[in-house]
Amino acid sequence: MTDQKHIDALVALAGPKGASTDAGEIAPHLREWRDKFNGQTPLMLAPTDTATAAKLVRYCNDHKIAIVPQGGNTGLVGGGIPGLEGRDEVLFSTKRMRGSITVDPDDMTITADAGFTVAEMQAAAADHDLLFPLSLASEGSCTAGGVVSTNAGGVHVVRYGTTRALTLGLEAVLADGSILHDLSALRKDNTGYDLTQLMVGAEGTLGVITKVTFKLAPAEKQLHSCWLAVGSPQDALRLLRSAREATGDRVSAFELMPRFGLELVLAHIPGTTDPLEEAHPWYVLTDIASSSMDPALESQVNDWLEREMTAGTIKDGVVASTLAQREALWRLRETMSEAQKHEGGSIKHDISVPVSKVPAFLEEAGAAVQATCPGARLTPFGHLGDGNIHFNVMQPKEADKQTFLDGWEAMNAMVHDIVTCYGGSISAEHGIGTLKRAELARLKDPAQLAAMRAVKAALDPNNILNPGALFG
Amino acid sequence: MTDQKHIDALVALAGPKGASTDAGEIAPHLREWRDKFNGQTPLMLAPTDTATAAKLVRYCNDHKIAIVPQGGNTGLVGGGIPGLEGRDEVLFSTKRMRGSITVDPDDMTITADAGFTVAEMQAAAADHDLLFPLSLASEGSCTAGGVVSTNAGGVHVVRYGTTRALTLGLEAVLADGSILHDLSALRKDNTGYDLTQLMVGAEGTLGVITKVTFKLAPAEKQLHSCWLAVGSPQDALRLLRSAREATGDRVSAFELMPRFGLELVLAHIPGTTDPLEEAHPWYVLTDIASSSMDPALESQVNDWLEREMTAGTIKDGVVASTLAQREALWRLRETMSEAQKHEGGSIKHDISVPVSKVPAFLEEAGAAVQATCPGARLTPFGHLGDGNIHFNVMQPKEADKQTFLDGWEAMNAMVHDIVTCYGGSISAEHGIGTLKRAELARLKDPAQLAAMRAVKAALDPNNILNPGALFG
Repeated sequence: MTDQKHIDALVALAGPKGASTDAGEIAPHLREWRDKFNGQTPLMLAPTDTATAAKLVRYCNDHKIAIVPQGGNTGLVGGGIPGLEGRDEVLFSTKRMRGSITVDPDDMTITADAGFTVAEMQAAAADHDLLFPLSLASEGSCTAGGVVSTNAGGVHVVRYGTTRALTLGLEAVLADGSILHDLSALRKDNTGYDLTQLMVGAEGTLGVITKVTFKLAPAEKQLHSCWLAVGSPQDALRLLRSAREATGDRVSAFELMPRFGLELVLAHIPGTTDPLEEAHPWYVLTDIASSSMDPALESQVNDWLEREMTAGTIKDGVVASTLAQREALWRLRETMSEAQKHEGGSIKHDISVPVSKVPAFLEEAGAAVQATCPGARLTPFGHLGDGNIHFNVMQPKEADKQTFLDGWEAMNAMVHDIVTCYGGSISAEHGIGTLKRAELARLKDPAQLAAMRAVKAALDPNNILNPGALFG
Repeated sequence: MTDQKHIDALVALAGPKGASTDAGEIAPHLREWRDKFNGQTPLMLAPTDTATAAKLVRYCNDHKIAIVPQGGNTGLVGGGIPGLEGRDEVLFSTKRMRGSITVDPDDMTITADAGFTVAEMQAAAADHDLLFPLSLASEGSCTAGGVVSTNAGGVHVVRYGTTRALTLGLEAVLADGSILHDLSALRKDNTGYDLTQLMVGAEGTLGVITKVTFKLAPAEKQLHSCWLAVGSPQDALRLLRSAREATGDRVSAFELMPRFGLELVLAHIPGTTDPLEEAHPWYVLTDIASSSMDPALESQVNDWLEREMTAGTIKDGVVASTLAQREALWRLRETMSEAQKHEGGSIKHDISVPVSKVPAFLEEAGAAVQATCPGARLTPFGHLGDGNIHFNVMQPKEADKQTFLDGWEAMNAMVHDIVTCYGGSISAEHGIGTLKRAELARLKDPAQLAAMRAVKAALDPNNILNPGALFG
């Protein structure tokens, strides 16, 4: 355990409320909501300003004390929880960094301290008739610093890009306690390596992000949400293409769901109903949006739906005509993870393949799962527009949960091998953390791994920044 | 000079036509078109495939021979020319890497070997009814590898982003001769540091880019090009905002030009005419485009123009109604650099500030220039939508050209200081190369410079990759 004299020194440096050694206060920061990760630490640092954060990091570096940065603690890969696998680590929470949040409507940017949540940034942007495009299930808790560290995705990536694409600049404390000033609102800057982009998705292993400037988009003035039944992922893909063509690329979400996933939602989530009368094998939920009131868009959407129904690509469908209807449709999608918890064990894969390869991947991976685990119930769903599918495998109905879950790593390895054959990614949006470290080492291009290690060693020579993540 | 035995060994490794020691053949690669840079080297390497490129780089690394990667040699900062400032460097041309260019219409991507030009990629995309969005004056010569190494900009950044935003993945030879395989067509991939993004804009100092996969956009089916007279940059900015609002963010180019720039074009570029009857202080050239045939867009554009003329923001204007008219309007903008060459010396600044700060910056920098160099003729023009202005200062009419140009560095320093006060960039799209190295060292955040040096030393410990660029 970290030496008491260091704990005392850090508490003193952190100032009033800037640190805690109270186990009860620290406890919620050590658990992941699905209970997959449970950490431990004697000390939580939680400074409110960059200068103090820098002092704390410098002290830790000088004394080779490992720290694990954490935002809203909504991560799914054990990347923000200290003390996993018996490591001696201090928690470094950025949740209290909430000094300032500013929208610049002329530059269409928002600059926020690391501790503001995505929902708060959405609201601040909306006050100026602008859109903070990031939208994900945890938006009420996840923070500016956290989404940048993990390059969060969500349902709007198909139109607005990932967090990486939205991040214009940032400020971060580096391992030696120096402050990286790159909090730029510039749209173009070619003055050397893009260190902001290097920090995005680095999972706190290269620095502690303290402030971020994000791009904003014009608010969506008009929104058509459609729930569409299709016969296959291939047909869903055809729809994605024709929707883009028909609407001038104004598709802002395009989600794929299987019938079985919908059935789980209908069975376990109160107040949900099937929007359609008959059952269909696959569903698409798409948002088509415009930032101007464009009377032509509605007819473009309607013409597209009619053409695709006539062609047989769409079997049946509804278009939300009220906000309440829209919310009901999106609830079916957003509760699809939660609904699975009620039916036993579920082995998760957050994968991506090139968009065009999703149908072939689903077929091949589905067959492989059935061959090794007959009766396993597949619930692949997610962001078809990005090629990002949450390829979840639920236990056979009567199987023993623990026995099934004991096969997690073997199942992962099999699915990841198939993903790799398709030129895909074993972590499309959740990151590596501690969970997928071994798979990363197994499957990543050796030259990339070597370059990553070289960069890490160069910027964090004492390996104090989240040493358990990525490399381990 | 590089030892003859190494030259012989590299020529042998490169295979037939893969290298040249012929001064006449090498000469065009050593000059920049404005004659600002003239290099020298005894050897040009020009492999056609990655495996050979890797062997050559490895040999150079083993023997500490410096190489300067070069694409189409259209750079403006001396970043791709070997042997400047007396350095002993070998030219490494990627122009012959032309094995394969492939469009994937389903994934809306193009993958090209480093030597294909932007114009060739535009044409390949257009064959599939898709758009390769990068558009810049040198597009007939600049290459895939070059635009990625320099993070090229151009006139479409306001809508589609810089090269950085378009680059999904790449393959590169690293300093030790290993091959970085990150040629991904994925829209989402969170498996560690984004090394592709680290290579973008690194000016060949971290690796030699051999293949790239870029995002494509749907082809623009409908295009409204408007030439608009305005009273001030502030009014131009107002127009940008209202154009975005009125058209649902479908502005794909938004360029600002001063009257004096237009006068130079009319005086020196044959066949050009003023589109408007009267003279106005400033002009905007904007493209508003849609990838679907949207009948509403034309009326949105017309309504917007009418509103802004009534409000007095637009003083006068024309909308191109034929392709020939459109080309004539764009020729006025695209020849504005060339036209300046006819009127004596011109000191260049490729700067950016936050979009909202452009008017204030122009005023302050303009006043500072007039105070130190009375009679200097200002020709600031460029990409207002990105905050990127080519702040060119032309010599007073009767001044001595050389005396004026001798003040280049002092003028740069003064302008860059003002840029820095506005949170701007001293190189928005052209890069640092050798030209702005000293200014980078003077003005960049010390923590960023230190981190850049650490990354460089980690990935190129023998400093063989373009050692004169960025750091020098």
